[in-house]
Amino acid sequence: MKGFTSVRGLGETELSSLIDRAMEFATASASRKPLSGRSVATLFFERSTRTRLSFQSAAEKLGAHVLDLDPTSSSTGKGESLRDTVMTLSAIGAEIFIVRHAESGIPDLVADWSGAPVVNAGDGTREHPTQALVDLVTLRRHFGSLRGLKLGVVGDIRHSRVAGSLFYAMPAMGVEVTAIGPPDFLPSSPIDGIGVTTELDPVLGDLDVVYMLRVQTERGAVVGDSYATEFGLHSRRASLLGEKSVVMHPGPLNRGVEISDEVADGPRSLILQQVRNGVPARMAVLASLEESLV
Amino acid sequence: MKGFTSVRGLGETELSSLIDRAMEFATASASRKPLSGRSVATLFFERSTRTRLSFQSAAEKLGAHVLDLDPTSSSTGKGESLRDTVMTLSAIGAEIFIVRHAESGIPDLVADWSGAPVVNAGDGTREHPTQALVDLVTLRRHFGSLRGLKLGVVGDIRHSRVAGSLFYAMPAMGVEVTAIGPPDFLPSSPIDGIGVTTELDPVLGDLDVVYMLRVQTERGAVVGDSYATEFGLHSRRASLLGEKSVVMHPGPLNRGVEISDEVADGPRSLILQQVRNGVPARMAVLASLEESLV
Amino acid sequence: MKGFTSVRGLGETELSSLIDRAMEFATASASRKPLSGRSVATLFFERSTRTRLSFQSAAEKLGAHVLDLDPTSSSTGKGESLRDTVMTLSAIGAEIFIVRHAESGIPDLVADWSGAPVVNAGDGTREHPTQALVDLVTLRRHFGSLRGLKLGVVGDIRHSRVAGSLFYAMPAMGVEVTAIGPPDFLPSSPIDGIGVTTELDPVLGDLDVVYMLRVQTERGAVVGDSYATEFGLHSRRASLLGEKSVVMHPGPLNRGVEISDEVADGPRSLILQQVRNGVPARMAVLASLEESLV
Repeated sequence: MKGFTSVRGLGETELSSLIDRAMEFATASASRKPLSGRSVATLFFERSTRTRLSFQSAAEKLGAHVLDLDPTSSSTGKGESLRDTVMTLSAIGAEIFIVRHAESGIPDLVADWSGAPVVNAGDGTREHPTQALVDLVTLRRHFGSLRGLKLGVVGDIRHSRVAGSLFYAMPAMGVEVTAIGPPDFLPSSPIDGIGVTTELDPVLGDLDVVYMLRVQTERGAVVGDSYATEFGLHSRRASLLGEKSVVMHPGPLNRGVEISDEVADGPRSLILQQVRNGVPARMAVLASLEESLV
Repeated sequence: MKGFTSVRGLGETELSSLIDRAMEFATASASRKPLSGRSVATLFFERSTRTRLSFQSAAEKLGAHVLDLDPTSSSTGKGESLRDTVMTLSAIGAEIFIVRHAESGIPDLVADWSGAPVVNAGDGTREHPTQALVDLVTLRRHFGSLRGLKLGVVGDIRHSRVAGSLFYAMPAMGVEVTAIGPPDFLPSSPIDGIGVTTELDPVLGDLDVVYMLRVQTERGAVVGDSYATEFGLHSRRASLLGEKSVVMHPGPLNRGVEISDEVADGPRSLILQQVRNGVPARMAVLASLEESLV
Repeated sequence: MKGFTSVRGLGETELSSLIDRAMEFATASASRKPLSGRSVATLFFERSTRTRLSFQSAAEKLGAHVLDLDPTSSSTGKGESLRDTVMTLSAIGAEIFIVRHAESGIPDLVADWSGAPVVNAGDGTREHPTQALVDLVTLRRHFGSLRGLKLGVVGDIRHSRVAGSLFYAMPAMGVEVTAIGPPDFLPSSPIDGIGVTTELDPVLGDLDVVYMLRVQTERGAVVGDSYATEFGLHSRRASLLGEKSVVMHPGPLNRGVEISDEVADGPRSLILQQVRNGVPARMAVLASLEESLV
């Protein structure tokens, strides 16, 4: 691979190969260190716990040295342009960039500027492609196969870069996706192959996977008191689910808003499995970039 | 050991074994790396130089990989609960947690949630158990043995988590402890086996060790101008000490308040030895957790 | 070497040896790890991207463990004196200190306090000696030799610690230096062997190297609109340069103020080469301190 800034355009072959590789990393420790002696820069312009640490763990487990840029203490604060920061890191020795930014499209700019492989760790409201890979790995490990699974993405879809990647990665692997939420939260324009509905309860019994999204108040989402009642996943609503159906959430959780404690910590929840698959999935992505390194 | 969140209830056998182990680490480099391939998470919700860096050095010298959570840039800032942060770190691969928090009892909660061994790096005004171990190691290295030593803990005892650990760890090793300070700073209720007095000068000549505490204005301590005069350790007062008596302080120092420059940097001071013993003492604690790891 | 806090007083022999060593590190990976098992502390009291990361990369490539003090989250914020912080880091195990501070002379104080080798990573408006070494390496790699080169340092010289080191390191290697800028920006007193002029255009055709300085508004520099016109290096002015002349800048760039995009990113620019030589030059300095370690 030459980078991993988007899942759009990736087919079943590429995704399957990444999923297989992640499953190997999840079950056995990497004996080979494909990034040994390499330097990987992490540029997180938005704050993050799980994603930054899981990328750093993944890179170090593959043998890489991590250059962690703290944007709050860096020269970008002296008015240095982002491009100069990237070129500087590149000249210092960074060979792969992992980028999170509040603005959509920045990871592609970093790739253009540096000529290096770039992994998108979340850009604006556009994509979060490694989260989609994590979720594919989690479902494949849980259900054994992906084709034909029915997945509902519920909630603040319009502000969600996770949804932005799920809507392309899931169908590419044969998963049927429905977007579910109040009108203001649904995609502003239709997306090929994605069903849309404004009511959760009527479709709940049909879903193998209920994927709850975080209400992103930090991106301007506003929810009234009725949101938890109509779209929150609490025990009563979860009882409408089929026997083998599961619940997912990309975290961090707004407990009591989109999901209740009982459901988040209950037997159907794959939430911790998602986090657990974060490191091996990101190892798979980073290892696949090896071939693009000089 | 299954964790190290408190020294209360630890007996001479357990403490001696930790002290011995620390003394080995202090004098020889660790040839074995008992935490090789393990991941240790540091969660410092209060700021710190010496404690965080000495834990990180200790963990790395034992072969561990350190996952350092910066709470100011993490999802706990997005309203994620502390429990979710801990479960997330655990799922990312953290196998031991080192926790500092402004609230007493948090390290035990982290242990309950994660099921992992937890080391308390200071919780609220309750305990700072590795500091007490550091101090035991320092006294044992200086005096050769501990039993029968007379130690006075002087100052802002009520706000001090260091004192909260010393009052249990020192008597367990046969050290006689007296709490010394103005009435507002003394323990609010009596502690088994700990003497109490409001005057420093009359007891000074009897002490082998004067352990000065930091006045913790950041925890609400208020001292008038008379404090340094009545309880500060300056040259004139230090001249009342017995010939072989020593001075300790857990740092950071309020020079000119509880201790003068001459005494802090003088020949009786074991303050830098305390810092020096920080890494080997913490190595001993971390190495002892090995048996609890899966 | 016993430290690297200043280039003043260094002769051709010492500088040549550092340059040679840096050129080896630049072209081959270090097979030997002279700082293996050693601990290096980075204390950056001013923010920085390139310098801090390039020092950390250099130290790690030499096998050292890096103790990175984040001054904003450290006990210096609890009123601990800088001296106590340094003594604490030393007691924790730091054997070499790398220091950046807003006040001139602090690195020498750190050396006095700790007795350890100290590298000055920029102090106030005084010196930035590793930058001067980086620039010597860059010129030597580009031109093959240094003696007789004509270098003009242009701009905010009075606030520039980079200039403070260039004015001594360059002449020591036989480079002829002229200081160029508006009267307010020129050195307040004459410096042995350094020419001075307030007009850029008349001397431009004679220079082999135009070294543009950052206008340091963060240190109180004020520039009117005419500054870019009179002293900025833009395409028209760069066309007055001799065929083989080159452009340098220590970064971070104020694009559109002291340098235009076309020149900064153009074929004469050695700016990225300067950054690229940052790691090997700092490896040379750190490796040369090995002999001073106990």
